[in-house]
Amino acid sequence: MTMIVEKKVFELPSYETVGGRTIKSVRIGYETYGTLNAAGDNAIFIAHYYSGTSHAAGKYSDQDAEPGYWDPIIGPGKAIDTNKYFVVSADTLVNLIARHPAVTTTGPATINPETGRPYGMSFPVVVPRDFVRVHKALLDSLGVRRLQAVAGPSGGSIQSFEWASQYPDFVERIIPVISPGLSISPYGIMTLDLWALPIRLDPNWNGGDYYGRTEPREGLIEALKLVTYCGRHYGWVDRTYGYRWAEEGKNPLNQVDQRFLVETELRAFAASRAPFVDANHMIYTSKAYQLYNLEADAWRVKAPVLMVPAQSDLIFPPALTYRTAEILRSVGGRVSVFEIEGDGGHLDGVYGIERAAGAIADFLAQPGAPIVDGAP
Amino acid sequence: MTMIVEKKVFELPSYETVGGRTIKSVRIGYETYGTLNAAGDNAIFIAHYYSGTSHAAGKYSDQDAEPGYWDPIIGPGKAIDTNKYFVVSADTLVNLIARHPAVTTTGPATINPETGRPYGMSFPVVVPRDFVRVHKALLDSLGVRRLQAVAGPSGGSIQSFEWASQYPDFVERIIPVISPGLSISPYGIMTLDLWALPIRLDPNWNGGDYYGRTEPREGLIEALKLVTYCGRHYGWVDRTYGYRWAEEGKNPLNQVDQRFLVETELRAFAASRAPFVDANHMIYTSKAYQLYNLEADAWRVKAPVLMVPAQSDLIFPPALTYRTAEILRSVGGRVSVFEIEGDGGHLDGVYGIERAAGAIADFLAQPGAPIVDGAP
Repeated sequence: MTMIVEKKVFELPSYETVGGRTIKSVRIGYETYGTLNAAGDNAIFIAHYYSGTSHAAGKYSDQDAEPGYWDPIIGPGKAIDTNKYFVVSADTLVNLIARHPAVTTTGPATINPETGRPYGMSFPVVVPRDFVRVHKALLDSLGVRRLQAVAGPSGGSIQSFEWASQYPDFVERIIPVISPGLSISPYGIMTLDLWALPIRLDPNWNGGDYYGRTEPREGLIEALKLVTYCGRHYGWVDRTYGYRWAEEGKNPLNQVDQRFLVETELRAFAASRAPFVDANHMIYTSKAYQLYNLEADAWRVKAPVLMVPAQSDLIFPPALTYRTAEILRSVGGRVSVFEIEGDGGHLDGVYGIERAAGAIADFLAQPGAPIVDGAP
Repeated sequence: MTMIVEKKVFELPSYETVGGRTIKSVRIGYETYGTLNAAGDNAIFIAHYYSGTSHAAGKYSDQDAEPGYWDPIIGPGKAIDTNKYFVVSADTLVNLIARHPAVTTTGPATINPETGRPYGMSFPVVVPRDFVRVHKALLDSLGVRRLQAVAGPSGGSIQSFEWASQYPDFVERIIPVISPGLSISPYGIMTLDLWALPIRLDPNWNGGDYYGRTEPREGLIEALKLVTYCGRHYGWVDRTYGYRWAEEGKNPLNQVDQRFLVETELRAFAASRAPFVDANHMIYTSKAYQLYNLEADAWRVKAPVLMVPAQSDLIFPPALTYRTAEILRSVGGRVSVFEIEGDGGHLDGVYGIERAAGAIADFLAQPGAPIVDGAP
């Protein structure tokens, strides 16, 4: 039985960014599953990925086609057991999916109260630590006194490390899934730059000033294609699409614009997401993650860590996890690793998370020291 | 001492493509190193990669900054010994680097003799087999009666498989380096689509009709950024650029358009190549390689094969080579494998080729059966 969940909105009258700028009237959406206990210490926070939202589990109604992205591990009796834990998940600042009715975020598409027009590119640069600070204010408002864990895939794993380093007395454990480790790395900076580049190429982007005009739809679709491409692995792509023409009888050999199925399917998927995405928010989210670097702060991560890489991940390959584990251990950190097998690529940390359910449940059940042995 | 080499031009009055279209006045550039023997049977053909040219070795003059891309293994006394072999390398049809003075190619940028204007998107789709057929005509014109080997990285490896399957009695051996194997795969089709996408987004592309107008320079630069990105590996990128700001004192935290070094360097490299590249040629070259599929023709590959994957290749990872070796062996093929170690990514098959010099020399020295044992 699927949980029925409800979206709520948290408001902060004013927030000062890590970069020293002030944002008025910050609003973010959030969901909660389970019940907070009297001591306020049975909470778990779920941090979402780059193009994710606060919809981590359950459905808004029985009519929903799909539940939240980590539903296989969040719910009554599941690895993150909502009979035991109070689970909170929230939209980040500058969330990509800004136009989805179930998402509330604050970013370039938000009306600047001082001008009455959307901020556009005048919105301040924010970083993952800003996401986390706003979420901390949300948890404070809910009466949460202690997090049993912060868990999240990809961008969410980045937030989990920020949580552990910023709030060591508040966070008991972290579960960074498909993670870059302690910094995004120059290669990751390049990746995030490339994802956003088609938006800037679209003349309708217009320097970020497209609100109320024709939107940079083509650029956005191509940008989302790049994100999906990087998120997968050739094993999954080859298996899913095969070497097939997009249309029967239309051999790509005969016309430059006759395509293969894998091209049209990738585009169709991106086009289906595009109406919910704000292009400037994508630029700002790329920028935010480019600025993630805790390499000098490894010693601040005191909470036990369960890292969950995906074997075929081409964005953050497992080698980054094993390197991070070594670094953290070298400064006294407690790290265990569980590797998700499969050929689904980076997205195995989202769509294949049930393969790590046992490791996550075990990790939550035990205090302190490593409880899962590293794979390879 | 570097060889001094000379560019020449081969002309075909008319060529019929695999797709059944006729191209008049085909012209391609080529270079030769060493001397053809009287029997015409000491030749080796070097097939270039996606964004490569016929300049495989030597310099045009002592003033050149760099020699041809495989110079470490081609020349007097080198693995491909020009004291012994007559080495030929030629530009492909629709070669990307169409605007470089040392490149001659025929493609969308070529004047259509029937209209007096560049073909643009009316140029017929061509495939790697077309590249090879034109090169076969070149070799015939030079008096070559037999190839001791065809060798080439990436796109060149694709051509080497086409050579072996099309001309089994003409080709003694092939050396596919950083190869996808017997087909490009759906994932490769996706990659090639994405590389060309920024060009189509640039309004100056204008449906391919930009000759004599403002060119789609921005789109082309972004397209070339994607090619370089895919060609590298995070190991090399992180080591080379580090986590550094592009400009002293300009923290990317403070402005969306203040960048990291890795972003500006990638762009600078792409921008330095862009003036030599024709945008439509890039679209046509992507299309050509998307259409590479010899999966049903493995049995046609009779020549012994030395495959040379690069350990950190993210475009065509070594697993594709080992799978291809298995397939070829299952139909009686003779395949050996030498894996280039390193963290340079796909481009280790270009810039790191000297690490395979010994394996290549041994393979050329021996007739028939495998002489190099597979790595891992």
